[in-house]
Formats: sequence, structure tokens, C-alpha cells
Amino acid sequence: MTTPTVRASSIEEHLEATREARLQSYREFLRIPSISALPAHGPDVRRAAAWLADALRAAGVEHVAVEETAGPHPVVYGDSLRAAGAPTVLIYGHYDVQPVDPLDLWTSPPFEPVIDGDRILARGAADDKGQVHAHVMAAQAILATRDRFPVNVRYVFEGSEESGSEGLDWWLTEHRDRLAADVAIISDTGFFEGNLPAITVSLRGLMYAQIDVVGSTSDLHSGGYGGAVQNPANALATIIAALKGPDGRIRVPGFYDEVVALTEDERASLAALPFDEVAYRDSINLAALVGEAGYSTLERRATRPTLDVNGLWSGFQGEGTKTIIPAHAHAKVSCRLVADQDPRVIFERLRAFVEEIAPPGATVTVRDLGGGRPSLMRTDSPYARAAARALEATFGRVPVFTREGGSIPVAASFQSILGQPVVLLGFTQPHENAHAPNEWMDLRNYEGAIRTIVRTLEEIAQIDPDGVEQPGAGG
Amino acid sequence: MTTPTVRASSIEEHLEATREARLQSYREFLRIPSISALPAHGPDVRRAAAWLADALRAAGVEHVAVEETAGPHPVVYGDSLRAAGAPTVLIYGHYDVQPVDPLDLWTSPPFEPVIDGDRILARGAADDKGQVHAHVMAAQAILATRDRFPVNVRYVFEGSEESGSEGLDWWLTEHRDRLAADVAIISDTGFFEGNLPAITVSLRGLMYAQIDVVGSTSDLHSGGYGGAVQNPANALATIIAALKGPDGRIRVPGFYDEVVALTEDERASLAALPFDEVAYRDSINLAALVGEAGYSTLERRATRPTLDVNGLWSGFQGEGTKTIIPAHAHAKVSCRLVADQDPRVIFERLRAFVEEIAPPGATVTVRDLGGGRPSLMRTDSPYARAAARALEATFGRVPVFTREGGSIPVAASFQSILGQPVVLLGFTQPHENAHAPNEWMDLRNYEGAIRTIVRTLEEIAQIDPDGVEQPGAGG
Repeated sequence: MTTPTVRASSIEEHLEATREARLQSYREFLRIPSISALPAHGPDVRRAAAWLADALRAAGVEHVAVEETAGPHPVVYGDSLRAAGAPTVLIYGHYDVQPVDPLDLWTSPPFEPVIDGDRILARGAADDKGQVHAHVMAAQAILATRDRFPVNVRYVFEGSEESGSEGLDWWLTEHRDRLAADVAIISDTGFFEGNLPAITVSLRGLMYAQIDVVGSTSDLHSGGYGGAVQNPANALATIIAALKGPDGRIRVPGFYDEVVALTEDERASLAALPFDEVAYRDSINLAALVGEAGYSTLERRATRPTLDVNGLWSGFQGEGTKTIIPAHAHAKVSCRLVADQDPRVIFERLRAFVEEIAPPGATVTVRDLGGGRPSLMRTDSPYARAAARALEATFGRVPVFTREGGSIPVAASFQSILGQPVVLLGFTQPHENAHAPNEWMDLRNYEGAIRTIVRTLEEIAQIDPDGVEQPGAGG
Repeated sequence: MTTPTVRASSIEEHLEATREARLQSYREFLRIPSISALPAHGPDVRRAAAWLADALRAAGVEHVAVEETAGPHPVVYGDSLRAAGAPTVLIYGHYDVQPVDPLDLWTSPPFEPVIDGDRILARGAADDKGQVHAHVMAAQAILATRDRFPVNVRYVFEGSEESGSEGLDWWLTEHRDRLAADVAIISDTGFFEGNLPAITVSLRGLMYAQIDVVGSTSDLHSGGYGGAVQNPANALATIIAALKGPDGRIRVPGFYDEVVALTEDERASLAALPFDEVAYRDSINLAALVGEAGYSTLERRATRPTLDVNGLWSGFQGEGTKTIIPAHAHAKVSCRLVADQDPRVIFERLRAFVEEIAPPGATVTVRDLGGGRPSLMRTDSPYARAAARALEATFGRVPVFTREGGSIPVAASFQSILGQPVVLLGFTQPHENAHAPNEWMDLRNYEGAIRTIVRTLEEIAQIDPDGVEQPGAGG
């Protein structure tokens, strides 16, 4: 391993000097409405990919390319492999964002970023453009002040994360050899309650389905037909109600078969986290938290599988009254999954159960809208410890190891397809409205993210990758 | 009673000669989007009222006025009281129409009438502008060919029927003396299956409510919060599912307390109607009819109360996926009622039950959106027999006495506020899509309606009103 030319402290000087330009660039990135789930925004997703590729090139990253996957949206790839003998780090984030509705609840337009004190408010500010941008700015700071990165880096920025990572696994499999790395750092998670620096050690998976109930070919007059025909909206409600009991347990047969139970140690370490349940509840303006019987709130939100309706629609939604039996009714239903649940298996069990309980007189279909596997990370790897040291050095607090309720299916893909250990190093504040109106990022976390990323790469440069135990290698 | 100057057979000649002008006028009336339930269409409702007042004046009806009620939309009143000693007939219809969504299922724009063979297709063609127009055309034909009506007539055309008849009862009460009549003819019903001429003898009432379930103040990320908080959409489904059992029985405590059971004779006479259940089912493209256990389809659709969801909405309704826990969920829920259920009492029982079963962790409210009482008519009154003779003379078939599943709250109001016996004389074909896309009227029924109305007034002129037993007068 050769030693790069280091100009001590110049990274911080560079970052101080470029703060305004950096925020300008961040806002520019946020202005592109790269909503991957909505086909009408396909061109915007590509515009964001091109913008990001340009930013990587401008930072000095090499071999930058917008690459097609088997899905509708491309991956932005770039690398810098000039640290012979040093570990190789694959860095992942996504440049696509969630849809923005309900638009009327935003206090400012979602793609016109507003800075309000320490917060920047826009769709994607936190999830995940802010974190992607921090990586690009870290690369720029390193290459503006040094000849090369302290390690070898590969950037993989996805454009389909918010729409099921369609086509990404194909791309990872196709380019497996080219993507070789000693560790994957995924920045799409956040800090613990109270803005406590955190490294995430488990992610839930996702199964997303749509239930469609169809009756007559058009809406029927509820006077002329009411009582004589099945009502698709009532039937849909009956189906949804049957999926979960009042104890919060999901009633789909076999649903819990593959769930790995928490050990007593794991429950104890979750219970030891500095979690203020009242503050958590108040932060989302709820009078009460409810969930599966027998589990704490932290357990429920990260270690237990769920079943939630994400959307419902049928019949008349306007003001006033309309006396119809709707022709059809629809629900988006998704499950967060935990190790070792398989989204395809869970979907098939859901479909079979819905078909079994479907009321007569209407046609019920269940469609698979995608998903991803849950994943579990090791807390004892030298890479996780390197990231933890960098977090502590930057933010001045020892990070906690947390479990995340969200899903980043690519984490399981990096583990299973590329055979890479994963470190989930994310920087958003809790309650940042990631999938809701008024998404925001704390600019102190964003600035700290850039410093932490630089330090993490420096820390990893000290690791001998040949001495690191590989995942699944035993011992 | 004086004898009017009669020019024999000239009414039919007049109608033959004016057919094109009549259809032109009918289409003009249908072009006004008088949707009473949508406040944005308030000016259109008034435009339809003004149009109708002009048409009545042009026909020769006197004292025509657009009169305010206690609700947002006016009544169009007119009369002709020149048949001294003859009975007075109050004629009722409504010039407002249902909303038009889902608009994409219409084969032509709902307010651009299209004539296709014997059908005229437009919102309101059948319910109820077509029938109102037939009354105006009957008046025009009579007054174009005779000096006066054979009876005294009062026209009361309402503009709020499709939005709960708001304010009409106040207006009827306020003008009770002025509106005195021996009988009320309501034309807002239709023929029996197979287009068999019919007089309706019972109408269901209506209770219309909205259930709102509110959780957090904004949508929550289903990963970060799923499992730890109540999901308003799941909670709404649970509530709706609990309202009705798999046997089709409504589970709101006390719901059936005031229902008057059918007698064996009434069940037998319903069973004797020429009802082709397979044709009925096929006409609405359903594979199966379902309903309350222990009742026939004809009984279910007209003599039993119902509970139907008319609309549902919550969270994400777009293409693809969005992983949120919706902040709120809503349902429009209505019940058709039968004698002697009271809509206010039923609403209070529904509200109490929903509040009792509401899952924890969300705020559930139930709002009353209006309704109307059920009504029962006599089949043995001389007025009903007069209408039956006119129907048979025009259409060449003996009419059947049927029960309607729909609601015309004003029927109960005419009975209780004005003390008038009601004859439900309507002319639409079954399956005319009254509250659905592609509403249509059979033009042969429309033309027959005009002739039947003229004949009914002539038949009623022969009745001595002082010899008719009044409703509720006993004996």
C-alpha cells in the first residue's frame, strides 16, 4: 500500500470555503423531481442521473457512467481504484425520491428547496439525495486536497429504490466481478431518537401487494340494487379486517413461520437504548401507540413484521353524498418483513388467504407490486467499528447500534449477490418525514455526514482486508 | 265543475307535430350540469331552475316562480287552478342530477346528450329531468289544444333531491296551505323488469353518513413507524367489516327494531311478479347475486334495509407503490331504510356502535350527511287506479304494483307535512344507469309518459275528491 500525498487539515479548510457552493449544488439536485414510482417522471429520474454523473465527474471520480439495468431507471456508477493494496469500498445511495402527495400538506413546493434555520426542506432532502450528495461532496473534498482516495472506492447510485429496486439485482449479478469490494457502505438510514449517531444492524424487508375487488361493470344505484348484490367496498373492508387481529397479530396462515425470534440478549440491548416513548409519540402527534401484544414499541417498529394498508380507494370521494354501490374497490397493502421471511413466499401466502376469505359475488385479485428481503448486519466487523470511530470523532458521541424498521432491499442483495459485508452508515434525523409531506434534512447532520465519510474512508484504509473474516466464512 | 273546451284528438296531433322541437328542448335541459351535491355546480342548478321556469311559462302554466327553500337550491313552482270543483293534483319531480364520476367510464360526455336508436344518453336523461320534461310537455300539449287543464295542477320541481332534499321540508311546511292538493303525483320511479308498466307502492328511506379515521397529522413512513402505530386505513376497514355479518345482517345494535315485517300475502305477491333473476343478474354483469339470508332478491332490494359503502379513500391511490401509513381514512356509508325506520334514530345507533368498536390509537368520528324516511303507498285509492288505467291505455299492458329499493324522501314529506296521498307514477326503464355512467332514457317510455300524464289528469278529473277517503282518516 502506497501512501497518498496528504495536505493536513486542508479538507476542513476546503469544506469551510465551499459551503455556499455546496448548498447551491444540493438545492440544484433537490430541484429535479426524480419520482421513480410515477412513469410520468421517468425523464426527471434520468435528468437526476445525468446531474449526479456530472457531479461525480466534477469531483474527480473516474469511469463515471449512467448504466441501464433491467428496470426503467439507470444506475450511476463511478470509481477511483488508485489505492493499491488498500481495501475497496462500495458506496451506495439512491437518487430517486418518493411521490409527493398529498401535495396540499406541504408548507412549500416539494421541489423548491427552502432553508429554514438548520433545516433544508424538500422531497429527497433526507431520503436519499442528501446522503448521496454528502458522498459526492466528501469525494470532492478528498480529491481537491489530496492526489487520491485513501482507499479504492466504487459508487453505485440507484434510481429505483423507492419503486422496488426493479432491475437492480439483474445489474448487480451481471456486473458481479466488476463490482468486487471488501465492504459495502449504504447511506440510506439515520440517527437514533434524540439525533444520536447510530449504525444500523438490521433492516426489515418488504412485500407490497394490491388487492382489487370488482363487482358490476359500472357503479350501481344503491337504491335499486342495494341488498341484492355484493358491494366491492364492503367486501374489501371485510378482507382487510380479516388480515390482522385486534391483538395486532397477522392472521395470514404461515405468516410467522420463518421469523427468527429475538434472543433475550437482543431484547435487553434494545431495552437499554435511550428511547423516550412519550417524545416519540408526541413527535407524530398521536395520543397513543398501539401494536402487537407482547412487544415493546422499539421491538414492534424494527424487529417484528407488519401488515399496513398504504392506500384505499373506491366509489365516491367527493363532497356530499352519492348513493352508489361502487363497481370496484382497491387497496395497496404491504408487509414489513424480518429475517428470515421471504417476500415472494409471504406474497403467495397472502394471496392464497385473500382468495380463501374473499366474500362471494365479486372478483378478487391480488397482485405482487414488488418487495425485498430483510437483512441483518454484524456489529463486530472492523468496517462497522471504523465507521463507529468516524461517527464518534465527528459528532462527539459514541454511536449506538440500532435496528431499522425500514427496508433497503439492496442491503440483502449486496450480501447475497456480491458477498459483501454491509455497513449501514446514515445521517438523517429521526422524524424527518422521509415518505411524507415536508421532508427535511438537518444541515448539521449533512455537514457532519461529509466529515464522517472522509474519516470512515481514512479509518478503513488502516484495515488489512485479507485479515477480515468474510460473511458466512464461519469461525 | 265546468267543462273545458275540448278539441278531440288534437293532443296526439300536437305531439306528433312537435316531436323534433320537444327532443331539442329535452336535450337543452340535459345540457345544464345541475349537480346539486357539488357546490361548484350551484350556479348550474340555478340555471336549470330558470330554464325550467321559462319552459313552464311557455307551456302556459301560471304563477311560475323560482322560490328559495332553507337549502342551497331553489324549488320551481307553478300552477293552474282553473278547474273549479275538480280535484287538485300536485306534481313533483326534480331537476337536479347525480354527480358524473367516474367520468372515464362514460361513452360520451354526460352533459352532451346523444340519441342512439330509442335511447337518449346523458346524466339526468332518466333521473329525473326526463320525467320532469315529460310533465312540462304534457302541460304544453294540454294548453296548446284546450283552454285549461281538466283538473287543478300545482307543479313542484325540486333542485336538491340528489343531495338529500336539504331545506325542502322547511319550504313545504312554510307553504303548507298554499300547496293544498287532493293527491301528489311523484314521477321519479320506473317500470318493472322487462319494461313492464308499474306503479310503485313503497320506497326505502335513506341514512347517509361519513366515517373519518384520523391518525398522525401527516402520513408516516411505514418502515419507521409500521407496527408501532394504529393505521387509520386498517382501522377503517375493521370498523366497516364489523357493521355487517357474512349472512348479510347488519350488526348495529337495534338496527332492525322498527322494521315492519312483510306479511305472507305481501311475500306471495312479490313472488308472483314476473321477475327473471338471471336476466337481472346478467344485465349488471354479475356472476352471482348475494344478500341477506332468508330473503329473495326482490325482497332484498326493496323490502329490507341495507348498509352499503358508497366511497372509500385513504393514502396512496396512484400507480406503483408508496410505503406510508396514511394520516387519515374515510368512508361514505349509507343505509336504505324500510318502514318504520327513522333515519335520525338509525344514524345515532350507527354512530354509537362505531364509537364503541373503534380500534385504539386513532380518532374516529361519524358525521350525518342527511337522509329521508321510507314510505308506503295505498294501492286501492281512486288516484292510483286512475293512473293505472292511464298506463294501461297508453302502453297496452296492465301495470304491476311494485316496491322500489330507492328513496324519494319527499314522498314521506308529502304524506306527513301536506297530508296528501301519493301516487308514484314513473316511466324509466330498469337498468337505466340512474346513478352510474351512461345514464339513458328510452324515448318510447318518454313519449308514452307524456300521453300517460295527460290521460291520468283526465281520469282524475272524473273523481269526486270529497268522496275519497283521506290518508290516516281511518274507516
